[in-house]
Amino acid sequence: MARRMLAQLKLDEEHVTNTLAVFIRKGIENAGSTTAVIGLSGGVDSALSTYLAVRALGANNVLCIIMPHRDSSPDGVVHSKMIVEQLGIRSELVDITPMVDAMLKTDENMDRLRLGNVMARQRMIVLYDRSARENGLVVGTGNKTELLLGYTTLFGDSACAINPLGDLYKTQVWNIASWIGVPDEVVRKAPSADLWAGQTDEDELGFSYENVDRLLYFMFDEKRADSELLEFGFTRDFIHRVRSIVQRNSFKRVPPLIGRVDNATAKAEGL
Amino acid sequence: MARRMLAQLKLDEEHVTNTLAVFIRKGIENAGSTTAVIGLSGGVDSALSTYLAVRALGANNVLCIIMPHRDSSPDGVVHSKMIVEQLGIRSELVDITPMVDAMLKTDENMDRLRLGNVMARQRMIVLYDRSARENGLVVGTGNKTELLLGYTTLFGDSACAINPLGDLYKTQVWNIASWIGVPDEVVRKAPSADLWAGQTDEDELGFSYENVDRLLYFMFDEKRADSELLEFGFTRDFIHRVRSIVQRNSFKRVPPLIGRVDNATAKAEGL
Repeated sequence: MARRMLAQLKLDEEHVTNTLAVFIRKGIENAGSTTAVIGLSGGVDSALSTYLAVRALGANNVLCIIMPHRDSSPDGVVHSKMIVEQLGIRSELVDITPMVDAMLKTDENMDRLRLGNVMARQRMIVLYDRSARENGLVVGTGNKTELLLGYTTLFGDSACAINPLGDLYKTQVWNIASWIGVPDEVVRKAPSADLWAGQTDEDELGFSYENVDRLLYFMFDEKRADSELLEFGFTRDFIHRVRSIVQRNSFKRVPPLIGRVDNATAKAEGL
Repeated sequence: MARRMLAQLKLDEEHVTNTLAVFIRKGIENAGSTTAVIGLSGGVDSALSTYLAVRALGANNVLCIIMPHRDSSPDGVVHSKMIVEQLGIRSELVDITPMVDAMLKTDENMDRLRLGNVMARQRMIVLYDRSARENGLVVGTGNKTELLLGYTTLFGDSACAINPLGDLYKTQVWNIASWIGVPDEVVRKAPSADLWAGQTDEDELGFSYENVDRLLYFMFDEKRADSELLEFGFTRDFIHRVRSIVQRNSFKRVPPLIGRVDNATAKAEGL
């Protein structure tokens, strides 16, 4: 698949890579830690986070956890092991099937969307547990496209202490990943949350990353008016759909709302 | 146990209760939902959240999930059922033991602190799953003392959409809970995260809620200098300890840090 990218999204790969390596190193140091713990899926996002962490900390200070489920595509483990070997980092394989099955038994009617969220959250539990064991920090793997669209599981794959990819659109992740040496098989395969067989992000979302990154860039970075977006060739329907996805998922980007209390009467009584 | 409370922390119970009921009602409505989903432990915090939610939404719109573990104190379920019956709300009992055991098998050396975090997070998974099933919102149960001290599990018991208790110190929770009708047995028992037999918050923290609420109030609400805190009778050691706990846990109160990229060179080249 040939992937075109908007000219404005083209980054200086070396500059960005260095910036993000410094970000990881400082984040780990500030937390009094030396170790990054990363959930490696075999996809391009977690691969790029891993390569950046190795640049930042050295191979000895990166621990990857590979967490397949019975229904996961076997490619995930194959590609993850390829990356682990290429980088010479430590890794641990944890099959999440028994935890997911135990949860599934509590409600046999669980649909695949709920099941997908359970999988993502069971992986979070393993990652945070291992980061506690290692006094490490969970380094995130969510890109800017995913975060804007809320195409993540809250307290699941989006859970992390620091996230080097959060300011990179998916098409930029592909670009930097290629440049930094992530294996071609990983960069080229169709992106998938791999929560059920045959799932691909672009099928599920109903648009390509190339198109949505273009739109998101003009909408949120350049803050263009709808009239301009229409001129650029985006359809009214696509603009509306993407904006409403971003708004509907805004709750995933903020901490819980806390109810504030004042004490009107008590204060009036001088208590 | 007689519980004294700092005069400044005494609230107008009716005013506060009404304020928080409105907060819950608006939060649920704004999310396009009608239902609160609450994890009921049998402790005073989740009890108060439940009573407030019933005031806000009516008994039919509150679903409580009771989630004991094999090692939980049996009191928890007994008290939870007492509350469910008294309020006439819906409830579901989910034993988290199988999910926790499945996780434990992935690393037999897990200590009880790690295990406690696994339990808290497995409960989060159940709560969020049921809230998805019911199109409900998870209503939180973390009080201000807990949140300031970071005496919570990140992505565990602290995970929620809206939290009516986050601006109430623990001693204020006791006060409002008594007033609103939470059973005496629940209000009076020693607070415990119930992650292992005999655990109590105050033993584990090494100070009483009464004392720490007084200190936190003067430190963070009135922003008193250390010289004043010493004059009020707090020891230098206690002040230092509490401040360092609050600072050490500040990461639990913020979203993940995102690495920002600029594009120095590319921009200079006019890309």
